[in-house]
Amino acid sequence: MAEVPPVLVNFKAYSEAVGDRALSLARAAEKVSEETGVTIGVCPSHVDLARVASEVDVPVFAQAVDAAEPGSRTGHVTPEMVREAGADGTLLNHSERRMLLEDLKDVCLACMNEELTTVVCASDAVAARAAGALRPHAVAVEPPELIGTGTPVSKADPEVVEATVEAVKEVSEDTVVLCGAGITDGTDVKAAIELGADGVLVASGVVLADDPEEAMRDLVSGIP
Amino acid sequence: MAEVPPVLVNFKAYSEAVGDRALSLARAAEKVSEETGVTIGVCPSHVDLARVASEVDVPVFAQAVDAAEPGSRTGHVTPEMVREAGADGTLLNHSERRMLLEDLKDVCLACMNEELTTVVCASDAVAARAAGALRPHAVAVEPPELIGTGTPVSKADPEVVEATVEAVKEVSEDTVVLCGAGITDGTDVKAAIELGADGVLVASGVVLADDPEEAMRDLVSGIP
Amino acid sequence: MAEVPPVLVNFKAYSEAVGDRALSLARAAEKVSEETGVTIGVCPSHVDLARVASEVDVPVFAQAVDAAEPGSRTGHVTPEMVREAGADGTLLNHSERRMLLEDLKDVCLACMNEELTTVVCASDAVAARAAGALRPHAVAVEPPELIGTGTPVSKADPEVVEATVEAVKEVSEDTVVLCGAGITDGTDVKAAIELGADGVLVASGVVLADDPEEAMRDLVSGIP
Amino acid sequence: MAEVPPVLVNFKAYSEAVGDRALSLARAAEKVSEETGVTIGVCPSHVDLARVASEVDVPVFAQAVDAAEPGSRTGHVTPEMVREAGADGTLLNHSERRMLLEDLKDVCLACMNEELTTVVCASDAVAARAAGALRPHAVAVEPPELIGTGTPVSKADPEVVEATVEAVKEVSEDTVVLCGAGITDGTDVKAAIELGADGVLVASGVVLADDPEEAMRDLVSGIP
Repeated sequence: MAEVPPVLVNFKAYSEAVGDRALSLARAAEKVSEETGVTIGVCPSHVDLARVASEVDVPVFAQAVDAAEPGSRTGHVTPEMVREAGADGTLLNHSERRMLLEDLKDVCLACMNEELTTVVCASDAVAARAAGALRPHAVAVEPPELIGTGTPVSKADPEVVEATVEAVKEVSEDTVVLCGAGITDGTDVKAAIELGADGVLVASGVVLADDPEEAMRDLVSGIP
Repeated sequence: MAEVPPVLVNFKAYSEAVGDRALSLARAAEKVSEETGVTIGVCPSHVDLARVASEVDVPVFAQAVDAAEPGSRTGHVTPEMVREAGADGTLLNHSERRMLLEDLKDVCLACMNEELTTVVCASDAVAARAAGALRPHAVAVEPPELIGTGTPVSKADPEVVEATVEAVKEVSEDTVVLCGAGITDGTDVKAAIELGADGVLVASGVVLADDPEEAMRDLVSGIP
Repeated sequence: MAEVPPVLVNFKAYSEAVGDRALSLARAAEKVSEETGVTIGVCPSHVDLARVASEVDVPVFAQAVDAAEPGSRTGHVTPEMVREAGADGTLLNHSERRMLLEDLKDVCLACMNEELTTVVCASDAVAARAAGALRPHAVAVEPPELIGTGTPVSKADPEVVEATVEAVKEVSEDTVVLCGAGITDGTDVKAAIELGADGVLVASGVVLADDPEEAMRDLVSGIP
Repeated sequence: MAEVPPVLVNFKAYSEAVGDRALSLARAAEKVSEETGVTIGVCPSHVDLARVASEVDVPVFAQAVDAAEPGSRTGHVTPEMVREAGADGTLLNHSERRMLLEDLKDVCLACMNEELTTVVCASDAVAARAAGALRPHAVAVEPPELIGTGTPVSKADPEVVEATVEAVKEVSEDTVVLCGAGITDGTDVKAAIELGADGVLVASGVVLADDPEEAMRDLVSGIP
């Protein structure tokens, strides 16, 4: 199973990261990874997943999967599908795609069976403790009010990062913690790591940057 | 914009129709279409959409799209995305993926803007009238209790087909009606057409058939 | 079955309209109704429904009911329950409680069976046409962006009211149209009526008014 | 704050437990409680909550509350509302009303602030561990496939009860465990207690019994 990358870039549904632009972004991630030796994972849309996974050599994560088994389910994306498309893992429970607790439990288990690495998002330390209790590979703490602001959680609310690390470790020692929301440069990444996080989850800071490749290079500079 | 195909095959999340098997099924549809001159559309999963659209020459429909604009939305599949992936249209409101009335309204409009052909599913004539009031290209009537049974709606409940055709025409003259649920062969298709439907929406009848190509050939034989 | 009242006051989950304050508000509505001869209906929370219905003589509407039949359903409020609690009708599909198209269809029918008057909310004329196609007693058009603003839809967007009246009448002649969002006084009500609405749906304009009774008296002055 | 009762009866949306029948059932619970000294709590529908709480002297629990703050929310039932109606606590995340993990977290906290006792349902030990991580007063384990069957979980799947007790205690020492699904008599209750549960959550076993009072008397006989 893929390791949790220390830098994970969520393409969301940004027009700047769909179709051919998804491929370009993923190639920039690949280039920076090769240069720096720091793994950068990418999360393209469902529609771009297979193409990115087959053409670019970086860890590829889905943005979500449904708690659905293969079969008579229309419009659902199953763990099996994204595995077959070449994905290494998936985000789950992002603040823009919250899940029922029971579905999240089912899908964490189903991903385990498909050898998909799971990164469960949570809004704060209490939610992170509940998420951690499902024993995913990573919990990503993202206070929703900071998403897309450019104000990093590591600066706006350092306690939430520390409290999350503590809460997650309390219930699941092997689960790592990513820090998201408002992360835009290497300084933010460094601060997150110092607060106990193992890496970062970023989106607009890279996708909407004038020069996404340079933005990733900057982010990676914060990884020790 | 693509016409509504008289035969539309929903691949659902069947293992038999994911990845390379999605491609094979689509190629079988292409072959039967070429042989018979009857257009067969296919609805692969989100993950297989781009590949099927780029490699096979049949109308390709998404199984669903989200009522989401491009931007900061994680795990959503937008009309823009499926258009860019090469889709011609989309199913909406399938019984396995029901939508909020307001989202359905928004997404029908958004699909119009992306020149995507919309096929809105409905469980009965009253729901079909409401769906028709949104002026989609097609309404597909599928009594959920018949889905996957092999008992065609045209036989089990012919009145629902007739009532749907009447209800839809009453509110939207240009919207065509497809008939779904339990359709497996040309006799079922013929019966549906005689009840006033313009075509059929099928899934397990093709996807789970011993010989899907032959199953499509049989279905198509019912089109006048 | 109860007529659709020309003024319908939605108590929402405002602290100002819960428990004893719900009773006081309903009594103020009763008083203004008696004085003026204009019927004012009230929509208390589920929790206050039975008490208001048994102690006050005004039409009482639920704020929502679930598309659930009696039986093994936890936390749901069924049409049967609110009927037994003494309600005369219910709001449905409010912008703060949108429903699946199929559930809305089921619940409109279930309410009919319980002789509950149905008022289906819709955000614009297209949604209103779809709602009207379900043949409820009323459609209430409320552009969500105007809710709670104090800027009445009849002034901010008069076309939406006219277009809604036209769209609803096109599909269901007997369905009346209420106008909501931003309505605070008699002038707004008068304008709504002149645009073709049969009445108004208000919330904060009454519930958060310094003097709710006086606010209702003012609203009612706009009814011809 | 109310203790978690060792026997908690969920009235669901059963016709047999609405309106005046809700009151009768609650009075039967009161009578058996007085006779035996074992507290029996009741969970009437939202609509019957206030009346049962004001007229009967047993702990009253809502069947659910929404993760909604007071204010502009239509059709929602807030912790504040049920507290004002006289409720002592609430069920949350019942299998017939599953919640988003994040909403469940928010609502557990909001209930704490209103001094409402929280009983969070979960389908198995893993979900129970996540639920327990939110530090509710109780977790009720109910394998959904056993609900309403009359086959008690304590007999059909004793391991799930033991595993749940262990999982919950691991993350929240003060949280008690109730055992639900298929419980109908004192033998089932006794078995549940012996497996480590602190009490039971029952519904059809009482509500649909020929003699609900007698059914409760029998259940209570299993409490040591």
